[in-house]
Amino acid sequence: MKINAKWLTGFVDGEGCFYVGIYKNPSLKLGWQVLPEFVIVQHECDVKLLYAIRKYFDCGKVRPNKGNGDSIMMYRVRSITHLLEKIIPFFERNRLITIKQYDFYKFRKILLIMRNGGHLTVEGLEEIKKLRNGMRRWKKKGLKDKEIVPSL
Amino acid sequence: MKINAKWLTGFVDGEGCFYVGIYKNPSLKLGWQVLPEFVIVQHECDVKLLYAIRKYFDCGKVRPNKGNGDSIMMYRVRSITHLLEKIIPFFERNRLITIKQYDFYKFRKILLIMRNGGHLTVEGLEEIKKLRNGMRRWKKKGLKDKEIVPSL
Repeated sequence: MKINAKWLTGFVDGEGCFYVGIYKNPSLKLGWQVLPEFVIVQHECDVKLLYAIRKYFDCGKVRPNKGNGDSIMMYRVRSITHLLEKIIPFFERNRLITIKQYDFYKFRKILLIMRNGGHLTVEGLEEIKKLRNGMRRWKKKGLKDKEIVPSL
Repeated sequence: MKINAKWLTGFVDGEGCFYVGIYKNPSLKLGWQVLPEFVIVQHECDVKLLYAIRKYFDCGKVRPNKGNGDSIMMYRVRSITHLLEKIIPFFERNRLITIKQYDFYKFRKILLIMRNGGHLTVEGLEEIKKLRNGMRRWKKKGLKDKEIVPSL
């Protein structure tokens, strides 16, 4: 199964997701963990495609999408290094053309803040929160400040 | 907004749908109408993309996706001529790589049967029924013979 960059861009414009989880974690200094990930979910009958995409990007993992039954599989990249060095540059070279592009910009900004350790400062975490809440998924849900309260 | 063939193939691998409706219609000789259509559904914020795809294929219509609220839009090609002369040849030149490809094969077979008027014969309608019920959407739903009963 041969993956072509333009094909992959179109497929991600349809099926890809730039996700930024922000979770309470008392063991961290500010009490919050920021977890960006790039995800593509497919029915297990297309799992070979997910492995081909994994091979193409040369990073990430293919695993069952928990909570949706074993028949749904996901390709996921969580490593900040791989996101910064492989995923981001790919979508800089191959631009998305749906409005998902704006989520990608915010996702990239968050990763650049994290690269410099910004998520470990109150200002950086606040900036990440604003960017994340401006992404479509969270705008739709209407989540605002209550979802993340960095300790001051 | 410039559409590239490979991008479009990837996008359709993710978001496209080859749909074959079979409806009761007492005004027709066999009592059933076969209605194939190629559809891409998007949130209205990406409606410009649907118009760009319409322009690229040079056929079809962009309209609200009824029943899902006005915020969901669809690009749809229903003309048998346009499906046979524009949509099918495109996906013969640009092969889908997800299992949607198998739905496309069945969709194409149904259209070739219809081109020769096969849907107006009992045998042709039965063949269309089998092909349609073998498409993923209907296999999942577990619809079988009860859904279409051609008059003999």
